[in-house]
Amino acid sequence: MASRESSGMEAFFNPRSVAIIGATPKEGKVGRVIVENFKRRFKGRIYPINPKYEEILGLKCYPSVKDVPGEVDLAVIVVPAPIVPRILRDCGEKGVKAVIIISGGFRETGTDEGRRLEEEVVEISREYGIRVIGPNCIGIYDNWSGVDTYFLPDKKMKRPPRGSISFISQSGAFASALLDWMAYNNIGVSRAISYGNKIDVDDIDLIEYLGKDDKTKLIIMYIEGLKNGRGKLFMEKAREVVKNKPIIVYKAGKTARGSKAAASHTAALAGNYDIYRAAFKQVGIVEAESFDEIGDFAKILLMQPLMKGNRVFVVTDAGGIGVMLTDALTRQGFEIPVTPDDLKNELREVLPPHCIVENPIDLTGDADDERFKLVLERVLPKPYVDAVILGALPQIPGLTNRFIDYVADVWSKYRKPLLVIDIGSEEAVKFKVELESRGIPVYESPERAARALKALYMYSKYVLRGGI
Amino acid sequence: MASRESSGMEAFFNPRSVAIIGATPKEGKVGRVIVENFKRRFKGRIYPINPKYEEILGLKCYPSVKDVPGEVDLAVIVVPAPIVPRILRDCGEKGVKAVIIISGGFRETGTDEGRRLEEEVVEISREYGIRVIGPNCIGIYDNWSGVDTYFLPDKKMKRPPRGSISFISQSGAFASALLDWMAYNNIGVSRAISYGNKIDVDDIDLIEYLGKDDKTKLIIMYIEGLKNGRGKLFMEKAREVVKNKPIIVYKAGKTARGSKAAASHTAALAGNYDIYRAAFKQVGIVEAESFDEIGDFAKILLMQPLMKGNRVFVVTDAGGIGVMLTDALTRQGFEIPVTPDDLKNELREVLPPHCIVENPIDLTGDADDERFKLVLERVLPKPYVDAVILGALPQIPGLTNRFIDYVADVWSKYRKPLLVIDIGSEEAVKFKVELESRGIPVYESPERAARALKALYMYSKYVLRGGI
Repeated sequence: MASRESSGMEAFFNPRSVAIIGATPKEGKVGRVIVENFKRRFKGRIYPINPKYEEILGLKCYPSVKDVPGEVDLAVIVVPAPIVPRILRDCGEKGVKAVIIISGGFRETGTDEGRRLEEEVVEISREYGIRVIGPNCIGIYDNWSGVDTYFLPDKKMKRPPRGSISFISQSGAFASALLDWMAYNNIGVSRAISYGNKIDVDDIDLIEYLGKDDKTKLIIMYIEGLKNGRGKLFMEKAREVVKNKPIIVYKAGKTARGSKAAASHTAALAGNYDIYRAAFKQVGIVEAESFDEIGDFAKILLMQPLMKGNRVFVVTDAGGIGVMLTDALTRQGFEIPVTPDDLKNELREVLPPHCIVENPIDLTGDADDERFKLVLERVLPKPYVDAVILGALPQIPGLTNRFIDYVADVWSKYRKPLLVIDIGSEEAVKFKVELESRGIPVYESPERAARALKALYMYSKYVLRGGI
Repeated sequence: MASRESSGMEAFFNPRSVAIIGATPKEGKVGRVIVENFKRRFKGRIYPINPKYEEILGLKCYPSVKDVPGEVDLAVIVVPAPIVPRILRDCGEKGVKAVIIISGGFRETGTDEGRRLEEEVVEISREYGIRVIGPNCIGIYDNWSGVDTYFLPDKKMKRPPRGSISFISQSGAFASALLDWMAYNNIGVSRAISYGNKIDVDDIDLIEYLGKDDKTKLIIMYIEGLKNGRGKLFMEKAREVVKNKPIIVYKAGKTARGSKAAASHTAALAGNYDIYRAAFKQVGIVEAESFDEIGDFAKILLMQPLMKGNRVFVVTDAGGIGVMLTDALTRQGFEIPVTPDDLKNELREVLPPHCIVENPIDLTGDADDERFKLVLERVLPKPYVDAVILGALPQIPGLTNRFIDYVADVWSKYRKPLLVIDIGSEEAVKFKVELESRGIPVYESPERAARALKALYMYSKYVLRGGI
């Protein structure tokens, strides 16, 4: 339900009714794709607005938003830039409190006309107290209410399943690529927002809203630059949010050359990367330094509990993977303790003599599901074990589907950080899908797993010491 | 054909006949899987050897290798360790010149008995002049001759298609995981060798053989440690090979803790990583520092020509990807030159005014296949352009299958290093598969693409200055 609390943000994500201004029945047009999107899942009222049509895709069409009989909680504007001010005034007169302006042709053009139009839009929105996302944006994809202004048809951009990840992206193209990628990788998404020129709603409003949103458990952000003078407030809000849910930031414009490119892209002041990094660290934001790390970090932070210390045990059926993991973990600063005598004895009791009980524990190529279970249930609960990585190559004959049940069962008893490394073909992919559906993240690269565990550890340290 | 040149190595890869000693009809046993493997593709004669059977899987079985009527070029031994010496002596008397000992139970057990047995095997092989791969190994997978001692059934380890990559792995488990992974990713493999305890044939023999092999265009190696005293010769051989084909090495045991794990795994002396790194660099070996880099580097080195300078142009339909790429390339030390005026003018003639002709060149979200083509054919041939990366997000409506033809056509005219960044779902995967089948490598992460280009650039610099 739309409420006027939380500064009207609710109307963007949970409107009872939406007007799509510039709706059209013409194939391939933005004004049609958005009507189709809302028709697909949105449960509220949909009002196409266009003086040229009586009806669009079976919905009654109105000449102006002012002609709509009921209340309009959200308006989506896709008309050419020069008439946006007039349309926005109509919205104000109608009492619309939330507007997404998809249309481009404003400040981002670098022209005087564009800047003037944008200033006019700002003034009108203030005059009527309208909250605005955009202009020049792709808007909102809300997987719960069905608000979906992403103007790419389903065959171009797949929609991901419902889930707990929300993301905020300064780049509309990157937002749609990421949604599409998440759909392909079956990663559940809650809400995705791309705000374009952000004349009003910006990163701060959005993390505040998503911070309180019980459908969002983790926030991903793509930032080129924060608005001038908003840095301090952003960091304060982030610090609050991070106590309850992780924020992963990918900062673009890390280098002087990249900042210059960002300036041409979104007129963003990318600023000094070192200052951003220091600030992120200070408020507990997890920084993803590469595209891969976005997904790698999200899944461990979402699935696994906090990691209370830096001692990792490795259990593998492949000695080589044990060595690779030991290197990767050591390079990330983790300790790989030698196996204490009590544990060595326990392990020797249940393992054949050719297995190596030293950490990394090597169950060797004749291991089976039971051997993994026997070892995991002895290692995981030990007080000197802060996390376990299983290097379980599924090519060995003894590994079957039972491995998944065993691992998930032991894990659910102790709930300590646990990851699996798994490299191969269909069998490996099946293991990955199954284990992740049970809450255990799977990686194919030892190095990426080690970096993901490091992200969890750093976030945990921040939260456990009370966000200081 | 087996020849006694190249120190008998040919008999391992192209034997006319093979004896499988310890063959068995029993389901799930190594001695059965290997017979099945050979039956699947090997065109020469197959002699199962086991005194207990008259016939195995439809093949006449002999009590001893000495009873085989014809010549035996290659023997594969899968009997228990204690009887390996006797069997090896039989092979010697029969005149077998190449033996793969799969059986474990030797030095790697850390027992006196294991060491003694291994020494005996060494002595017998020297006495008869037999070349040995193993013991305690997974052996050879040869995608041309059908030699396949990888004792994992097809449902556990998929076999990749034929191709130009060969690899050598100190870890048998890693070798089988990599083969399985390559099959899943449709990466073509020529020959894969894992040598276990390497009492005779080692890395040096193998890179020498693969260096001369016209079916191998690139060599991947997983090394824990070289044999004592063999380092210098290995580097000399590698230096020769690298002039004609790239060698990618993944070195395990990079850290002190990892080296300790390697010592338990293959008794390898992992040595000082810094010394290895310096040596690799000196002889032009490309080092993959992570699992991902193995595949990422292999495809660019295999598909793309040498890169003659460090100036990169980026062309994208998504400003955000342009910024990410600019950062990633800059951090790898590449130059992203500003677009010279002549090129700017050429581009302005063919592009709508809202496109950005500055490098990174942003064709924006309304780009189509033609726009990419027009720009690529103007940018790629310029003498100040050493490589081009296309950031082509396939979510935009204007990108269709023609993009693939256009890009492949322009590329085939100029043959300069060209990569594509592509993030998304089915559509993105289709683009990737098609482009790669045309010789253009595709990455989903800007950072990984930049690192891959760096690997190509470093290899190119080494080769172009004559390997000095």
